[in-house]
Amino acid sequence: MIDRFKVTAHNSTRVEETALRETVRSIFTACGVSPKDADTATDVLVTADLRGIDSHGVSNSLRGYVQGFHDQELNPTPEWRVVRETPGTANIDSDAGLGIMVAPRAMEIAIDKASKVGVGTVTIHNSRHLGMISYHAMMALPHDMIGMTMSSCPVNVNPTFAAEPRLGTNPIAIAAPAGTEKPFVFDAAMSVVPANRLIWALRLDQDLMPGWVADDDGTPLMHPVPPPELGDDGIPQANILPLGSTHELGSHKGYGLMAMVDILSGILSGGGYGVKPGRPTFNHYVTAYNIEAFTEVTEYKQMMDEWLVMLKNTKPSPGHERVLYAGLKEAETLADRKSNGIPLHAEVLSWFDTACQKLGVENALQNRF
Amino acid sequence: MIDRFKVTAHNSTRVEETALRETVRSIFTACGVSPKDADTATDVLVTADLRGIDSHGVSNSLRGYVQGFHDQELNPTPEWRVVRETPGTANIDSDAGLGIMVAPRAMEIAIDKASKVGVGTVTIHNSRHLGMISYHAMMALPHDMIGMTMSSCPVNVNPTFAAEPRLGTNPIAIAAPAGTEKPFVFDAAMSVVPANRLIWALRLDQDLMPGWVADDDGTPLMHPVPPPELGDDGIPQANILPLGSTHELGSHKGYGLMAMVDILSGILSGGGYGVKPGRPTFNHYVTAYNIEAFTEVTEYKQMMDEWLVMLKNTKPSPGHERVLYAGLKEAETLADRKSNGIPLHAEVLSWFDTACQKLGVENALQNRF
Repeated sequence: MIDRFKVTAHNSTRVEETALRETVRSIFTACGVSPKDADTATDVLVTADLRGIDSHGVSNSLRGYVQGFHDQELNPTPEWRVVRETPGTANIDSDAGLGIMVAPRAMEIAIDKASKVGVGTVTIHNSRHLGMISYHAMMALPHDMIGMTMSSCPVNVNPTFAAEPRLGTNPIAIAAPAGTEKPFVFDAAMSVVPANRLIWALRLDQDLMPGWVADDDGTPLMHPVPPPELGDDGIPQANILPLGSTHELGSHKGYGLMAMVDILSGILSGGGYGVKPGRPTFNHYVTAYNIEAFTEVTEYKQMMDEWLVMLKNTKPSPGHERVLYAGLKEAETLADRKSNGIPLHAEVLSWFDTACQKLGVENALQNRF
Repeated sequence: MIDRFKVTAHNSTRVEETALRETVRSIFTACGVSPKDADTATDVLVTADLRGIDSHGVSNSLRGYVQGFHDQELNPTPEWRVVRETPGTANIDSDAGLGIMVAPRAMEIAIDKASKVGVGTVTIHNSRHLGMISYHAMMALPHDMIGMTMSSCPVNVNPTFAAEPRLGTNPIAIAAPAGTEKPFVFDAAMSVVPANRLIWALRLDQDLMPGWVADDDGTPLMHPVPPPELGDDGIPQANILPLGSTHELGSHKGYGLMAMVDILSGILSGGGYGVKPGRPTFNHYVTAYNIEAFTEVTEYKQMMDEWLVMLKNTKPSPGHERVLYAGLKEAETLADRKSNGIPLHAEVLSWFDTACQKLGVENALQNRF
């Protein structure tokens, strides 16, 4: 399992966005997904690749989804439904459908509610992986709304002072529109690093940084350590630390934020928390705030632009070229990859060849440029 | 300024809650605050003291408020008003009134909206200090709702890679009810430490921990350093780091969360962001989620209890007695201080004597037990 992931710097090829979309869509439909859901799921994955969030794009995620459909752990045709609803809220049973297919529908409902009563919040239970969670938050942007997403994940993070993991990496995303500047788009696990970062370290044969994981007894490891092996499920065998790493550096804050995500996504939705026996792997939360319900949109956008320009013009500390804000680098990568293609590793391209052959679909990536 | 704060471990006296409330209320009314607002402000301050959040109780905060009324920087009789409203949202002009007086009214509005449309969000601009921000979130608890609070604060935290401060410590609070367990109440600055922690270190003559502040050029200081001096405004002259401290430990996440608070509290409300020239010192955000709008309240409470018991029964790591969840220790302190009184330092008791004399009000704390 490890060898196939070994990465060398010069072993990737750029592929056209349209070809990648075509192939990914074909793979989803070959797995039994409807054309509409396949379009949505493809857009979530390829948008991650376009924005440079490769950890949540086709390379890492798609093969797991294909396996999940094959193992009947994922429902390719979820009959998701709203189980409870008010003018500003809804709770959705995702019917074991992937978050990347169901959450965009939930966000559409939240946006519709926000257009009517100013704010819309939708929880999603009995669900599966949400992909790059900022995708769903970003759906609010063209509506002049602010979007938020949270996802309660399987457990691999230790609470502060704990000897065992009790929470998922539980990411939070927020997307806020601007005028002429690139929108603010924040998307981060509330653990010090996401689980994917440990897999990445294993592939690159890098030590983990001090403060990323705890020892078997829960003591934070404040020196470099070798990356953990992966379990049979592909999950790193590690006690990841909350954002803040140690109590002195505020790990109780990362712990509290992960707990907040479990409450709003898992418990409020009735879906269950991380270590609850029999809990589905993921539960989610989305919210849309209609800017016009609070202030004039033009004034808001003017102030956002002013604020974002202030942040990016901030004097950098020595050794750093510039100060970024969340979403800025991703917008730059998007522009590059739209024009010049999306880099995929040779191993990923070879996986596409094999998968397409096995599923009997055409692989548009064979016409790479 | 520094000497008066020097603390010795055995130099405090426990005072009765009722006596403290009486004196604090008298001080507020002597500053021109209405009886209703004085009751509210007193409850916010004394609740912080009862829960052991001494940094936001009477000791640290009240003298600043009295000075603010004297300097006319704080409006003792704010004519706050809703400037925009929808069924699920409102935006309030706080008329330079203290957050501890106006935000509880905003939360009442949010709770009322949540009871009607499932969720209520209220922003507050042109405001002042919010006190212990979880107070306002906790107002949702008796209504079987989940409460959230955020506050965009004056600037003293550096963004990741920045040589200069651009954000406030921007705290986030969430309060979620349980059944028989103590409620989950999280309340934390999104910087690695709140500004008050540096003042505390100065009082105790303690070095700051590695990872708390940056050098003058913005480089994170990863070794112990002496506490910074206070400026004329009583604010520590330091570049505080975001939660995460360094980029490797995820400081871009603390930075992103502080930015989220600036957007939802400051920019969405039209009040302005941290370093905007002429910006009022604080802008806020409150939300209430009606649990019944998402799921059965009894089922929610049963699952919350189960989850909280699981967290507090988690095996602790070596050197730690137990694993806590946010709000648990505070509930224990509350029970103790309700019965045994609130410990106040001699210097604080002496300040009360002087202040009461100056304002011509009776000091009920002279009957301490």
